Amino acid sequence: MKSVKVNMSKNRLEAFSDGVIAIIITIMVLELKVPHGHHLSDLKPVLPVFISYIISFVYVGIYWNNHHHMLHAVRSINGAVLWANMHFLFWLSMIPFVTAWMGETLFAEIWPVVFYGIVLLMNSISYTILVIVLLKHEGKNSLLADAFGRDWKGKISLGCYILAIALAFVNTYITFALYITVACIWFIPDRRIETKMSDEQQKN
Amino acid sequence: MKSVKVNMSKNRLEAFSDGVIAIIITIMVLELKVPHGHHLSDLKPVLPVFISYIISFVYVGIYWNNHHHMLHAVRSINGAVLWANMHFLFWLSMIPFVTAWMGETLFAEIWPVVFYGIVLLMNSISYTILVIVLLKHEGKNSLLADAFGRDWKGKISLGCYILAIALAFVNTYITFALYITVACIWFIPDRRIETKMSDEQQKN
Amino acid sequence: MKSVKVNMSKNRLEAFSDGVIAIIITIMVLELKVPHGHHLSDLKPVLPVFISYIISFVYVGIYWNNHHHMLHAVRSINGAVLWANMHFLFWLSMIPFVTAWMGETLFAEIWPVVFYGIVLLMNSISYTILVIVLLKHEGKNSLLADAFGRDWKGKISLGCYILAIALAFVNTYITFALYITVACIWFIPDRRIETKMSDEQQKN
Amino acid sequence: MKSVKVNMSKNRLEAFSDGVIAIIITIMVLELKVPHGHHLSDLKPVLPVFISYIISFVYVGIYWNNHHHMLHAVRSINGAVLWANMHFLFWLSMIPFVTAWMGETLFAEIWPVVFYGIVLLMNSISYTILVIVLLKHEGKNSLLADAFGRDWKGKISLGCYILAIALAFVNTYITFALYITVACIWFIPDRRIETKMSDEQQKN
Repeated sequence: MKSVKVNMSKNRLEAFSDGVIAIIITIMVLELKVPHGHHLSDLKPVLPVFISYIISFVYVGIYWNNHHHMLHAVRSINGAVLWANMHFLFWLSMIPFVTAWMGETLFAEIWPVVFYGIVLLMNSISYTILVIVLLKHEGKNSLLADAFGRDWKGKISLGCYILAIALAFVNTYITFALYITVACIWFIPDRRIETKMSDEQQKN
Repeated sequence: MKSVKVNMSKNRLEAFSDGVIAIIITIMVLELKVPHGHHLSDLKPVLPVFISYIISFVYVGIYWNNHHHMLHAVRSINGAVLWANMHFLFWLSMIPFVTAWMGETLFAEIWPVVFYGIVLLMNSISYTILVIVLLKHEGKNSLLADAFGRDWKGKISLGCYILAIALAFVNTYITFALYITVACIWFIPDRRIETKMSDEQQKN
Repeated sequence: MKSVKVNMSKNRLEAFSDGVIAIIITIMVLELKVPHGHHLSDLKPVLPVFISYIISFVYVGIYWNNHHHMLHAVRSINGAVLWANMHFLFWLSMIPFVTAWMGETLFAEIWPVVFYGIVLLMNSISYTILVIVLLKHEGKNSLLADAFGRDWKGKISLGCYILAIALAFVNTYITFALYITVACIWFIPDRRIETKMSDEQQKN
Repeated sequence: MKSVKVNMSKNRLEAFSDGVIAIIITIMVLELKVPHGHHLSDLKPVLPVFISYIISFVYVGIYWNNHHHMLHAVRSINGAVLWANMHFLFWLSMIPFVTAWMGETLFAEIWPVVFYGIVLLMNSISYTILVIVLLKHEGKNSLLADAFGRDWKGKISLGCYILAIALAFVNTYITFALYITVACIWFIPDRRIETKMSDEQQKN
């Protein structure tokens, strides 16, 4: 009976997170304002917002994938995990705002590009906090601890975001290129968890 | 077979509530209007709306956490519970409106701050009604009744909201400080339910 | 294995419907436009939209409750049920539009009130079609067929909607009063299903 | 234990997709701008947007139905499936934008109708990619491979979309008629999967 209760708790955290992430990823499309004209050229102002949308869609997709894989390896949760998750969702919910701002100013202006980076950085930090809180709850010998052993991707991303924000004051397009590079690094979900879990399952 | 049916019913109430709460917490971000300029100073009018958003995000988060913990301790539901829950969700759905109004007027005007307080008060009252309906359904000797025995947090919050609304006519910033104080009180989810449930689980 | 597959299918229909209904009930609140002033009187134009919102919230709540109870009594679904459900959700999704229109014109103008009635009527008809398709799938001796035997509420509602639409051309406030009356009739979820199911469960 | 883990993973993919699809299908209704007048004639500019909405609602409904049936026949998922699904959801999320554009220009202008077709084409292609990735994961002798053996509907649709886009430069109403025709072809969900699965279940 214990495990059932604990699983349900975890399931509801997943369901709530899925709901919030699904809404975040979808409401960004509302920023694509319908043009009033009907020529191909009327789509031109929509283009940078569309490109912003693609990048943010991929970033939110990456987080959903990682969140999915991480909670897959988790056995139970507690109150601290609920709040760490809420904190992470808060920063994720900032993405539509900075996406629209960066898109409207064509990636050419410093502050919109900087704030996009700050939100990505805060997402990364809040996700790391969530991982730490989960690891503390699950224990050092857990499946999760094994899988997250080194986490070089997370460390590289953090460094890239800080570098990208600094470089925005030199050239915003370099920053923009760095955002795309980090997305590419994360694109492939962390196979170590999948592998660890397959091993675990084969042992059982 | 009986327990499965009853659980599914509870699960769908949780799923629907999660959906509504996830939407409420996320659509508030749509009130953060994208500035048309690209300077740091263009973000200035967004700042009070952003601060409003943080407070409301935390409040909705608190309710989700408490709702989650409460339903965790519940074994089944009935028609009255469905409607008490719907009533609670109605008042929760008012939060984005009062958040935006309070944010737009920089917390300096009486009525937006008063209405924010009224909505918080109605949330608190409707949540209390939901608890009472659940307690009536679950019985006095239930896990839930044990856990909610005293509920000093709920009583303090109710008092604070009424005090805050009254003080708005003196100084809106005192009111504002009281809203933050109440959030801090509730920030930590009710550990008594977690403790009671752990005890229960250890007995099984 | 068969029953598990069938249940999952029903579960996903419930989950999708819950999602759509949760969004419908929540996006209506976006029509409550934040007033630009900060006086009590600035809320005056919001009031009729707010009253519209309450009525529509209750109507959508009624449909969610009934949908919940009905699918609770259903054992499996098929392709026809999926489409009948989609048709019902289509008409439900029209509620935010007519709610906003009726609210903006203060319930005093004929056409907004008439169209609100038409959408309620189509909701009622599409829900009835969903019930018929489910009954055909479940069979005449099913739990659902027993429970829906007479359905006097559905028939009275249909009649009231048609009457209300016709009376709008005489006086829109009579129509408005009829909409509230029908909501009151439906407010209590159909207890027969709950009773039938309790009986069923006691037999098992 | 293995099968439980795998199923949960699939369930969360379904839940997330359901969330995104539910939001896409519902936010389209936000494009139905509330008329400021209260005469029947004030609804006239809303009519083409409403017709657009019906078609897109049916298209999204078709994809949900097919997605539902397809994942019903799937036993487990992997990282590649998650990303193929995300890619499909991206193109699905473009539907509200092109729906609004096509509706605003009354189906009479070339580019809005062409872009609607391009988005439908990309939906079709990304869905086909998802099917291919799933078939590769499930294996050639799986239930899914059997069911998707010929897939004439998918091939006809692809051809029709390309034809429709080309014909938009001749007459946009022919294109429009083709979009409705393709919807009619897909309206009935693929019964082969249902039949195959019933056979499978009877064998067990």
